[in-house]
Amino acid sequence: MDKDTICAVSTPPGQGGIAVVRVSGTSAIPVCDAVFVAANKEKLANQQPYTIHLGKIYRGNEVLDEVLASVFRSPHSYTGEDIVELACHGSAYIQQELLKLLVDQGCRLATAGEFTLRAFLNNKMDLSQAEAVADLITSSSEASHRLAVNQMRGGFSRKLQELRAQLLNFLALLELELDFSEENVAFADRKQLSLLAKDIRKVVSRLINSFSLGNAIKNGIPVVIVGETNAGKSTLLNHLLNEDRAIVSDIHGTTRDAIEDVVNIHGIVFRFIDTAGLRETDDELEIIGIERTYEKIEQASIVIWMIDSTQFTEKIDKIAEQIVSRTKDKKLIIVFNKVDKINTEEQSVLEEEFLPDVKTTRIYLSAKFKQNTEKLEKALLDAANLPKMKENDVVVTNLRHYEALKLALEAIDRVIAGLKRGLSNDLLCRDIRDCNLHLASILGGEITNDEVLKTIFERFCIGK
Amino acid sequence: MDKDTICAVSTPPGQGGIAVVRVSGTSAIPVCDAVFVAANKEKLANQQPYTIHLGKIYRGNEVLDEVLASVFRSPHSYTGEDIVELACHGSAYIQQELLKLLVDQGCRLATAGEFTLRAFLNNKMDLSQAEAVADLITSSSEASHRLAVNQMRGGFSRKLQELRAQLLNFLALLELELDFSEENVAFADRKQLSLLAKDIRKVVSRLINSFSLGNAIKNGIPVVIVGETNAGKSTLLNHLLNEDRAIVSDIHGTTRDAIEDVVNIHGIVFRFIDTAGLRETDDELEIIGIERTYEKIEQASIVIWMIDSTQFTEKIDKIAEQIVSRTKDKKLIIVFNKVDKINTEEQSVLEEEFLPDVKTTRIYLSAKFKQNTEKLEKALLDAANLPKMKENDVVVTNLRHYEALKLALEAIDRVIAGLKRGLSNDLLCRDIRDCNLHLASILGGEITNDEVLKTIFERFCIGK
Repeated sequence: MDKDTICAVSTPPGQGGIAVVRVSGTSAIPVCDAVFVAANKEKLANQQPYTIHLGKIYRGNEVLDEVLASVFRSPHSYTGEDIVELACHGSAYIQQELLKLLVDQGCRLATAGEFTLRAFLNNKMDLSQAEAVADLITSSSEASHRLAVNQMRGGFSRKLQELRAQLLNFLALLELELDFSEENVAFADRKQLSLLAKDIRKVVSRLINSFSLGNAIKNGIPVVIVGETNAGKSTLLNHLLNEDRAIVSDIHGTTRDAIEDVVNIHGIVFRFIDTAGLRETDDELEIIGIERTYEKIEQASIVIWMIDSTQFTEKIDKIAEQIVSRTKDKKLIIVFNKVDKINTEEQSVLEEEFLPDVKTTRIYLSAKFKQNTEKLEKALLDAANLPKMKENDVVVTNLRHYEALKLALEAIDRVIAGLKRGLSNDLLCRDIRDCNLHLASILGGEITNDEVLKTIFERFCIGK
Repeated sequence: MDKDTICAVSTPPGQGGIAVVRVSGTSAIPVCDAVFVAANKEKLANQQPYTIHLGKIYRGNEVLDEVLASVFRSPHSYTGEDIVELACHGSAYIQQELLKLLVDQGCRLATAGEFTLRAFLNNKMDLSQAEAVADLITSSSEASHRLAVNQMRGGFSRKLQELRAQLLNFLALLELELDFSEENVAFADRKQLSLLAKDIRKVVSRLINSFSLGNAIKNGIPVVIVGETNAGKSTLLNHLLNEDRAIVSDIHGTTRDAIEDVVNIHGIVFRFIDTAGLRETDDELEIIGIERTYEKIEQASIVIWMIDSTQFTEKIDKIAEQIVSRTKDKKLIIVFNKVDKINTEEQSVLEEEFLPDVKTTRIYLSAKFKQNTEKLEKALLDAANLPKMKENDVVVTNLRHYEALKLALEAIDRVIAGLKRGLSNDLLCRDIRDCNLHLASILGGEITNDEVLKTIFERFCIGK
């Protein structure tokens, strides 16, 4: 294991009231003692863990900042190593200079997720829990937050450990038979084993199936809005976007760019995929653009087709044909916009005559005047159709876990088939071990490959 | 005083490894105990100050996050009140929900600078020190940082206190004479008093004069680059901008927008004012644009006039006339760009024949190939001509202080004139009190007006 002492700014980048620089490793305390002078002159090395000390950071003879130093001692810390957290004033200059001072004292700048990587390597958490830390930090809705907390607290790990315990029990019996193979005794009841394998299969399948839900919760349900150029797509999108973000933006000054196109409706996150406007054209370039719009439908689970009620003509036929044919396996919501500009009679005509064969949700609204937009929100929630999660439901949100579970499922299917065909014990054992290995890889116990760990922790932010 | 318990995110806005929510006020500890459950079940109310406690934040029965709670007790805290700092995971969602929970428990969201305002109101620091906290957080160079640290540590306050002590001593003697006025005794030696007043005047003047330095250090020295449209202004600016910011950007992900146009050269900050390109034109609109460029010269202390060495023609004459006449009281640096494209002979012609009467710094460089750009940096530093600061030099950086000092100067001038004219004691005393009041207003002792305090603390960030 890497024994460098590492440091990083753990708070969000930029300027604020305070910032926290975290130092972790065997030299964390002496390194900090070299730049920090406590108000009472006492060295951090002489301090109890879990205590806070007011003092000054010196750069040579000059005071860089007045800070609070918090002391944690191995193994009772986030990383399991000695840690000092220096809470300084949140100027970018001070944060940068403080890191420089620590580096001068022999620290190394931490890579993304390196504190959590060390927590994993020091057995403070398993790999799925470590991965949940990154999910927790990026979670933006109640549901995604709950999944991350549950995973971090070990809900997912416990479920996997249960499965592995069953498998290993299974394996032990078969291996016992192998040891006594010359005597041809049977310790394992094949029927019992088959039932157990099917049980495991059921749980693994359920976890695999939960991934589409987990992915929708974590990354948002992909929605495409298509329609003619002036149908009012952006007005609608802006309306949906603005409704929800007020609180987050006010408090945190989050920039619009960062969360653009993601809308949280009653705790469900929808991710809007931007498209160009559709229209009948002979222009080669425009045809390419429109074809791309149609392709984006592929990525969506929900398609909102916006129609300008006032501009409604037969020209829409060709577009209609395309949209209907391309949304057969999607949820299609037809939105008639600008209904404030048409009368009831015109609306009745629309309701009766527009594609009467297409049975799907239709909403009549005005995006501009926010009429009936709440009906669209309800339609989106209905279309999302996420199963209700119970408190401790275990849901897979991580692609790596999903893929490991699929490999585990293939292995357990081989076991079940093998039991049916009376496969020899040694081959059965191989498949069981295989299944076990895939489940273990999720928890990280069997991962010794640095590349794999690197890939997993790369998506963390620096300082965590 | 406002007795609400207040809360805010004190770390920079956005997402990061950890974020710190600060709670301050008489109910800070019970409020946090209502949502925080320590791993060892012990209440924060029973904990020693300056200690850290691992535990969970609950939203009803659900875990919102695992956090570290730091306990500080009045009066030994930043604000002088009880404080709990909750270090949570740095997701925007968790930060927002944690604030909501605290508000549900009766906290109020803190306004900008409110923690520091309380520190001031609780006599943890004087007003000039409190103002230095905001300067410290926004300081972006070694020099501005040093000024802020010095001011925060009370260097400026001590100097003012010295002046006030002298003034009050002065006043006491005069008032004593007033008390005994019927007996017509003189306790105060008028000559002595006059010397003292002149001494005070000297110090106040020096502080006032330091403001242009302080302002240059804090906000940067204003520089305008003018020149014809294709002279290479932006190439040069980009080059200057990129040189310095590498470290800050790498570590902090600071966005280019936030610090665009500010260049730190060897610790001196230059603030580049953007201008449109100049050229001879009859177009009405363009003439307006060019006139604006000339007006921007007014705001600058240093003007860089960029000339494309390859496009050098007589047409430049009219522009030259304007620039020379408008930069008489500025530092003018003439930069001949693209010298990589001309030969030595052509350069000699430029050197000898271009405005031979204008005596100013001339630099021959290539912005594109970074030839001689270091000469320009040196020329900028020379033009800045900032006096060297000594370690404990007191420099005024704050406009409010500058204005109070100017009023104090006027009052002390009235005292000096009064002494000369043999003004009556009671009138002299009034002017001395006036001077004292203006000096005191810098420290905040005499400020009881909430509006003034509000204005001062508004420029703080939330959470400090």
